[in-house]
Amino acid sequence: MTTYETALGASTPDTITLLGHDLARDVMGTVGFGELAFWLATQRRPSPGETRLFEAVLAALADHGFTPTAIVSRLTFLSAPDSVQGALAAGLLGGGSRFLGVTEDCGRFLNAVVRANPEPDDWDALALDTVKAQGKARIPGLGHHVHKNGDPRTPRLFEIAEEEGLAGPHLSLFAAIGRVHPRVLGKTLPLNGAGTCGAVLADLGLPLELLRGFALLARTAGLIGQLAEELRNPVANDIFLSVDTNTRSVAPVEE
Amino acid sequence: MTTYETALGASTPDTITLLGHDLARDVMGTVGFGELAFWLATQRRPSPGETRLFEAVLAALADHGFTPTAIVSRLTFLSAPDSVQGALAAGLLGGGSRFLGVTEDCGRFLNAVVRANPEPDDWDALALDTVKAQGKARIPGLGHHVHKNGDPRTPRLFEIAEEEGLAGPHLSLFAAIGRVHPRVLGKTLPLNGAGTCGAVLADLGLPLELLRGFALLARTAGLIGQLAEELRNPVANDIFLSVDTNTRSVAPVEE
Amino acid sequence: MTTYETALGASTPDTITLLGHDLARDVMGTVGFGELAFWLATQRRPSPGETRLFEAVLAALADHGFTPTAIVSRLTFLSAPDSVQGALAAGLLGGGSRFLGVTEDCGRFLNAVVRANPEPDDWDALALDTVKAQGKARIPGLGHHVHKNGDPRTPRLFEIAEEEGLAGPHLSLFAAIGRVHPRVLGKTLPLNGAGTCGAVLADLGLPLELLRGFALLARTAGLIGQLAEELRNPVANDIFLSVDTNTRSVAPVEE
Amino acid sequence: MTTYETALGASTPDTITLLGHDLARDVMGTVGFGELAFWLATQRRPSPGETRLFEAVLAALADHGFTPTAIVSRLTFLSAPDSVQGALAAGLLGGGSRFLGVTEDCGRFLNAVVRANPEPDDWDALALDTVKAQGKARIPGLGHHVHKNGDPRTPRLFEIAEEEGLAGPHLSLFAAIGRVHPRVLGKTLPLNGAGTCGAVLADLGLPLELLRGFALLARTAGLIGQLAEELRNPVANDIFLSVDTNTRSVAPVEE
Repeated sequence: MTTYETALGASTPDTITLLGHDLARDVMGTVGFGELAFWLATQRRPSPGETRLFEAVLAALADHGFTPTAIVSRLTFLSAPDSVQGALAAGLLGGGSRFLGVTEDCGRFLNAVVRANPEPDDWDALALDTVKAQGKARIPGLGHHVHKNGDPRTPRLFEIAEEEGLAGPHLSLFAAIGRVHPRVLGKTLPLNGAGTCGAVLADLGLPLELLRGFALLARTAGLIGQLAEELRNPVANDIFLSVDTNTRSVAPVEE
Repeated sequence: MTTYETALGASTPDTITLLGHDLARDVMGTVGFGELAFWLATQRRPSPGETRLFEAVLAALADHGFTPTAIVSRLTFLSAPDSVQGALAAGLLGGGSRFLGVTEDCGRFLNAVVRANPEPDDWDALALDTVKAQGKARIPGLGHHVHKNGDPRTPRLFEIAEEEGLAGPHLSLFAAIGRVHPRVLGKTLPLNGAGTCGAVLADLGLPLELLRGFALLARTAGLIGQLAEELRNPVANDIFLSVDTNTRSVAPVEE
Repeated sequence: MTTYETALGASTPDTITLLGHDLARDVMGTVGFGELAFWLATQRRPSPGETRLFEAVLAALADHGFTPTAIVSRLTFLSAPDSVQGALAAGLLGGGSRFLGVTEDCGRFLNAVVRANPEPDDWDALALDTVKAQGKARIPGLGHHVHKNGDPRTPRLFEIAEEEGLAGPHLSLFAAIGRVHPRVLGKTLPLNGAGTCGAVLADLGLPLELLRGFALLARTAGLIGQLAEELRNPVANDIFLSVDTNTRSVAPVEE
Repeated sequence: MTTYETALGASTPDTITLLGHDLARDVMGTVGFGELAFWLATQRRPSPGETRLFEAVLAALADHGFTPTAIVSRLTFLSAPDSVQGALAAGLLGGGSRFLGVTEDCGRFLNAVVRANPEPDDWDALALDTVKAQGKARIPGLGHHVHKNGDPRTPRLFEIAEEEGLAGPHLSLFAAIGRVHPRVLGKTLPLNGAGTCGAVLADLGLPLELLRGFALLARTAGLIGQLAEELRNPVANDIFLSVDTNTRSVAPVEE
């Protein structure tokens, strides 16, 4: 008979444990939610500094106003108000390669270089090689369509990582890319916040395959905020009507 | 021209604000993730006590081992490993009336009574009327299929609420239901943890229409933990095979 | 050891069966897709007339232009173009109580009356009682916000059902409600197409708990059409920008 | 003001059109569901032969018994029976790279070769080059873990395509790959049915970016069948219990 092992939640008639600890006595009332999310993902309890840095990333990614994911969540709630889970799930499904993917792409990109070059003498030289090797391909995390002169989240994430003694090789490489890329690209692009979040999450040792998942966790809190605001001050129907009233029926492609 | 208002995330080329505050300076590094989730949902910054109680609820609901939602998330990740967002969304879609719904159902049930009876003289008398009025209908939050002698999360939630001075009418009524229901039902059932979470969230003033959303937020962290564990120690394919190898083909109903 | 029974798909190294038939030889090339969907849902092969009526329902529900579900699917595809399954799933999640739910609500509503009154002498008398019993509650399927003088799909569905000899008690009752409700409500409302679809599906003997599912099946085809059109003639980014550029940041509710 | 164009559904108070045709008069009762799905995706009405071949593909992909997607849909329905849309959406979310992706991967793979070699003199020579160029990479559509001696759907799809005069370059190349690959790989693998479906859909001129979408459309019908069977003969709770009762709690990775 197959046995399924887990170190996460478990219960008997008299006890509930989570990650090997008594849930009620040792986790509830003691462990913050960001700390718990980190612990669940790594099965390692983070230090207070790690928790602070991780929660700074979650704050950076939680909500960016009327993004497609927020619009999708509100429209789905309009159509199916009986299913909050559907509205949240629909919003998260937009968390793919384009809108929420930068965090993961940047973390993985940096990690591939870092693993191949574990103890570089000169970050700038490594960064220069890295940027050149990309050729015409985009460097994940470089550039922002709005914050062209700098994304305010980026220096703050570096600052918190430094304060907590947690700036590791991913942030070092990313910073170096920020310094050297103009020599190759001929123009200066900002390091964006979503990419910096990926570098931070990689430095924190979180699983690379799931970096997008942390962006989605942050966004779940943001989407609940969006739905709460939709309940107080609804706009989804107006968004729908703004499309509906500006629709023009055209002939099919072929006929 | 329609205008869409939001108090959540906003940005200009040089600034990013969240809930009216400078995101980088005033939120990142300062505001914990549970605190932020509360703030986003209510647009009111919680006190440290409110945050602690809210995070205790999130811990209570984050992961319960191989629940249907966890199995669903792992199986979806097995089928579509390229789409973490799909695996999380699929898991959340099980957060409906049966498995994650108790929290919301209990919060709403208690709230309906509390609103109709704003300042009762005697909670036990009100609880007795409430239990009687249900007739044969289930009282949300009462009973647990595993923790028949008491759910360990329940007293802990009451305790933290008391410590923080945040036990309000929903918890008072729920506690009273716990005391009086044996007189009506002829048997003693435990107040379950998921229901108590609903009472706590209602006492914290969180939007009743979204109580299920907080269970889903907690579960998102749990599902990331499940996927991380699946990456390290995969079981989804074994679960699939345990079904596949025990399948029996039968004749259609009619033919 | 538990055994899991199914009459649907099954395979051995040399054979594949579906619903007890050899898939390649007896189903592929012979059974149309609407016919197959009916067969899968009921495990009973429909007659050609049943298939024609069922496919008329699916056509009636497949696409209604830029509905919230279509907008959601397009926006999700914009955000996560690597995940077609996510874009379709997000669109379907809007298929809840408000936008796609009328079909199921109407079918269930009629069925409750039909089951309680299996062989009425007089459909109009039964309909009159039914309308009166609703009091101020809405009658599912009655009224349409655009087609105020009549939904063109409604008479066509009645016509096809008559042609195929498949008009049963649900359609009879719904037609009678259409005749008598003005006497109670004091105004004449059209029987809408989505509601009529529910009556037809109930008359066809499809499972009531899944009537919404057939609307979702029809809509899946429609959403693929929406995504195909989005690929040729994209509008999702314009929809996003029309929201983004008309956003106004306001102060949080409390602070 | 932005205008949003569509050739799909449109309505005025008195009319409803779909693809430029009067929905009630010209589509309902006349156009089958497979035909309509093809038409919606291409905006071109398929011939009867195209419809027959397309519907054969949909039948081939509709249901394969207790796959992960079927299990996911049933478990989600168990957890959230109030949300049929959630159960279907969750099932579809498993339609990613591994389980339902072969159809799309194979169609795209063949198409890349076909576009680069529009009128080859010798399909076998082209196939040989194609197989060699893959090196150690898998050729999509080649091999099947159960049907090792041949997938029964494959010859049937070739047969129907021949009968309808619709075997095009994608099927020609795929057949040639089936003939020549043993010379390169040193072993004979079957052309699987899901891959052949991709070749057929590409030959039919359906949009390559959405080939996975047609597998998902077929699967939606299959999942409704699964949920209907679950209602009659439930197994989801047994599947859950078979996991739950064989769970073993282990220590976290680090601690």
